[in-house]
Amino acid sequence: MKPIESEKKFRYYTESVKQIEGYREPIGFGIARVDRGQLHNEKILQASFPVVNWKENYASAAAFIGALMESEVEVDFGGSEFVCDVKKKFVKNAISIFDAYIKSAFGTNHSNVQVIKYLHQISQNEGLENNFRIVFLFEDAKCKSVESVYLKLYALSLGKAPLRSLNLEGIFGLLENVAWSVNVPVELEWLRANEIEMKLDGSYPFINAVDKFPRFLQHIIPEENVRIMDASKVRMGAYLAKGTALMPGASYINFNAGTTGAVMVEGRISSSVTVGEGSDIGGGASILGVLSGTNGNPVSIGKNTLLGANSVTGIPLGDGCIVDAGIAVLEGTKVSIAKEQMKLILEINPKFKFKQKESGNIYIFKAIELSGLNGLHFRRDSQTGAMTVSRSNRKVVLNADLH
Amino acid sequence: MKPIESEKKFRYYTESVKQIEGYREPIGFGIARVDRGQLHNEKILQASFPVVNWKENYASAAAFIGALMESEVEVDFGGSEFVCDVKKKFVKNAISIFDAYIKSAFGTNHSNVQVIKYLHQISQNEGLENNFRIVFLFEDAKCKSVESVYLKLYALSLGKAPLRSLNLEGIFGLLENVAWSVNVPVELEWLRANEIEMKLDGSYPFINAVDKFPRFLQHIIPEENVRIMDASKVRMGAYLAKGTALMPGASYINFNAGTTGAVMVEGRISSSVTVGEGSDIGGGASILGVLSGTNGNPVSIGKNTLLGANSVTGIPLGDGCIVDAGIAVLEGTKVSIAKEQMKLILEINPKFKFKQKESGNIYIFKAIELSGLNGLHFRRDSQTGAMTVSRSNRKVVLNADLH
Amino acid sequence: MKPIESEKKFRYYTESVKQIEGYREPIGFGIARVDRGQLHNEKILQASFPVVNWKENYASAAAFIGALMESEVEVDFGGSEFVCDVKKKFVKNAISIFDAYIKSAFGTNHSNVQVIKYLHQISQNEGLENNFRIVFLFEDAKCKSVESVYLKLYALSLGKAPLRSLNLEGIFGLLENVAWSVNVPVELEWLRANEIEMKLDGSYPFINAVDKFPRFLQHIIPEENVRIMDASKVRMGAYLAKGTALMPGASYINFNAGTTGAVMVEGRISSSVTVGEGSDIGGGASILGVLSGTNGNPVSIGKNTLLGANSVTGIPLGDGCIVDAGIAVLEGTKVSIAKEQMKLILEINPKFKFKQKESGNIYIFKAIELSGLNGLHFRRDSQTGAMTVSRSNRKVVLNADLH
Repeated sequence: MKPIESEKKFRYYTESVKQIEGYREPIGFGIARVDRGQLHNEKILQASFPVVNWKENYASAAAFIGALMESEVEVDFGGSEFVCDVKKKFVKNAISIFDAYIKSAFGTNHSNVQVIKYLHQISQNEGLENNFRIVFLFEDAKCKSVESVYLKLYALSLGKAPLRSLNLEGIFGLLENVAWSVNVPVELEWLRANEIEMKLDGSYPFINAVDKFPRFLQHIIPEENVRIMDASKVRMGAYLAKGTALMPGASYINFNAGTTGAVMVEGRISSSVTVGEGSDIGGGASILGVLSGTNGNPVSIGKNTLLGANSVTGIPLGDGCIVDAGIAVLEGTKVSIAKEQMKLILEINPKFKFKQKESGNIYIFKAIELSGLNGLHFRRDSQTGAMTVSRSNRKVVLNADLH
Repeated sequence: MKPIESEKKFRYYTESVKQIEGYREPIGFGIARVDRGQLHNEKILQASFPVVNWKENYASAAAFIGALMESEVEVDFGGSEFVCDVKKKFVKNAISIFDAYIKSAFGTNHSNVQVIKYLHQISQNEGLENNFRIVFLFEDAKCKSVESVYLKLYALSLGKAPLRSLNLEGIFGLLENVAWSVNVPVELEWLRANEIEMKLDGSYPFINAVDKFPRFLQHIIPEENVRIMDASKVRMGAYLAKGTALMPGASYINFNAGTTGAVMVEGRISSSVTVGEGSDIGGGASILGVLSGTNGNPVSIGKNTLLGANSVTGIPLGDGCIVDAGIAVLEGTKVSIAKEQMKLILEINPKFKFKQKESGNIYIFKAIELSGLNGLHFRRDSQTGAMTVSRSNRKVVLNADLH
Repeated sequence: MKPIESEKKFRYYTESVKQIEGYREPIGFGIARVDRGQLHNEKILQASFPVVNWKENYASAAAFIGALMESEVEVDFGGSEFVCDVKKKFVKNAISIFDAYIKSAFGTNHSNVQVIKYLHQISQNEGLENNFRIVFLFEDAKCKSVESVYLKLYALSLGKAPLRSLNLEGIFGLLENVAWSVNVPVELEWLRANEIEMKLDGSYPFINAVDKFPRFLQHIIPEENVRIMDASKVRMGAYLAKGTALMPGASYINFNAGTTGAVMVEGRISSSVTVGEGSDIGGGASILGVLSGTNGNPVSIGKNTLLGANSVTGIPLGDGCIVDAGIAVLEGTKVSIAKEQMKLILEINPKFKFKQKESGNIYIFKAIELSGLNGLHFRRDSQTGAMTVSRSNRKVVLNADLH
């Protein structure tokens, strides 16, 4: 294939690729270096993406697809995803197709072209097909490959796809449970097969985890002013917005969970949970996930909300709420609201409708009925033991559209 | 010593060894690679066993003992344990004794013979006696050596000896407190002696813990479908049955503690605690150990029991129980059971006898009086603050022998 | 400069240095190896001190200052701190000045001289100025350099300066947020600039944390019988007195916080909190810090006090107290004390004055009013839900001066 020497011709070329019958724009694509099983070489244990394209860079996608076709790979647009080996031929063709961009591809420019340049260098010395794979995701269906699982986890962790927006069904079945020796996934079966020799010659590897998922920090460079004081506490597929700090005590952020603004995290953000700007998850506070006690309702915590140390929250909360230290607010927890507090709460929750009649001077609710309201303060009276809700003293900024 | 060329002759040989006066079958034995003190070479800091024999492989034990005697080591059967250096002579003799098995010793076959084969290889290039030790445990008495402590911890962690079945008295006194640099134990005194030089030339080691115990994953390859998301959270001497998953938030499993079936562990399993199949230890839940608040009664948690997030449990529980999130159930915690709930509880606890008279419509118990019962649901009334027990909605499978 | 051949002459020399106009004795000083930014070489990311001098070794300080001046560095005594490069010339002069001590400088003798000896060796092969810095702290003012921040953190972590005794204002602004690859700080910007290449060639580094602070164990060799089961759980700047053990579950010790005697730590010791000899911080127990809910009052916990599992403590406590498992004692928590318990409490708190009148047989307090008292037992009645305080059953050793 001859070099495509101008940007105009590149655009012409990629447009022509897009005219192929059945062509589909991928929602996500990228080239990954993969780690394979030590015993089962056909098994992909991990995929590391230097660049993730998500609803963007469609011309580069077309260029990659063109380069595949020119090297006689038939791209199947019929399925939800297409994954294949990266071979020298493909890289050579891609170098030709991207010719007009090669020189300016460095720093933050043309990152897909940079990938091709490095692959071209690497291919001078070694075969590529065992180590590199290219993935196209045509729709957000159930994943069919480890590579597409990783592409989705990257999209979440890079903030390119919002938390809870992707189909992650069945990913536990696709990912292999492996021993992680620093950044390298090791098959447990291989460890077993080599245990005697390695224990005797002193080469038994350092294992820092056994899990299906890698850690967030193995793949993701955090955003500005994010602090993660212990890498083991954030699973790949989590997202930490700018300014989020995670302390090492009892904290944890699972995959498909995280923060949407700067949050102080000293507690647990279970899978499917999101927490908003300015909130504070106190030491040991637990927010329940869809897999752990919420009947499948994902919990969102609003902005500027405080979950006290060792509290437990199983319902969604709005902005400016407080759950006192040591309190558990589950779906069925009964709480009382005094009449005058209800007035204050309604002021900042104008859309809240409830049918209950007051009983004496108080209303009784199941906590789930208060889902998502702003400015609630959950506390337990330390003399009567009763759980009450009152207007919190934390600021609630109402969206204009609530009025 | 001449090679013993047939399996029959091997059996004859080992039987003859067993006829030696005073011979005792070891309950456990194995050969370990040891790490010694950098300053105090006589101190054993860690012992790594490629193969642990526990109430099994008595012929191999006799072969090892024979090989020791043929190399003029006097094995003392009088004590509870015997430990000595592994020398070239011993390995040579063992190679001869196991001659009939050498060829077939690979994969999962004849693992003790594999050990000898590798030692034979290693001995071509280096002396063995500083690095390898052989241990025989003749009875489960108080340990006298670091090597026997490790042999017992391995037996527990490999599931060869049930949790709480071994005499672990005094092991804290035998184990050295060391800095763990990845898998290598380093004497603190050596660090101090070399601190200035290492800090200045940039070679100060990475220390991931300072403790007497190594981590479980330094020595044990977990069983099928076990996940340990942070190696620091499981101490050597713990046991995790198939399917157990340990999340990284506030979880921890101490030595001589663990699970007897697939358990989701997001809380703390203190030393001496066991948890049964299908149970769920919620985020931050604490189960108290004999060293931390149970008056020496080890706590067992049954099957299919749920300990809510941030709950605390200080009494044994049966199957299908629930401790609500945020609740502390200690030995002296008073709980009330309504009359009609008591009927339901008795149905699934037919052997439970209690003398109490009802008071009004409720019974009052100290939690310890309900030890080990099935199907209990501990909750706190969120309006009155009272702790109650009722029949849980979790399934309890009664053993036939209870009826 | 000629060698100063006797100790007497050395003393004479250092006294003469101290006569320089404006000379000030430093409260702290030391030479550090520094890690610099991979992209921004001018940024200091970490400083490792082989030896920290704190209100001691004033003759060595004078010798260092003399060696600087002889190598034409003008030491500015006018500011609160002085920091400069360590150059070959300085080291040569220091070798001459310390000549009388060179031979005996090994083991635990003359550690500052040992530093100079090693630097002298290193300087044979490489330049020093990019890697080594010398720091003098003349007063405990707001830090102006990363080097002085580290010097203060070392002083705290080595127990040379008491916790909470130093001015740490503004240190978050001085420290760079970096990725920690084992012991090495890596600029996030450098990771970003090299991500594509490193992901493709498989050299992406192992990152165990992203934080401004290093871990305690990267710099400090713990005191006798201290155990830290997970290095991620203790931040540089914390102090752990002899015999302190930190378990890996939900524990954490922040900078400028720690223990003043042997303490079992299974919970969180927030920044500014201190805990005394013989106390026990149960699994998941939280002690609130000045940044997390105490209105700026630093919390001290006395001796022999027990904080139960998953308890929360937001007020200072004296000796021999108990906070029951799962209880939250915050500043505003109302607690009742029965009249006869009050008598027992006053016996061990003779200086406690309170104005309250009893109401029936009980007194009601806000927890903050009981700050620092000895022998309190905080519990929640499991039938009424009321928080009470009574005399604990833990031993309180009263200081003689209380009587």
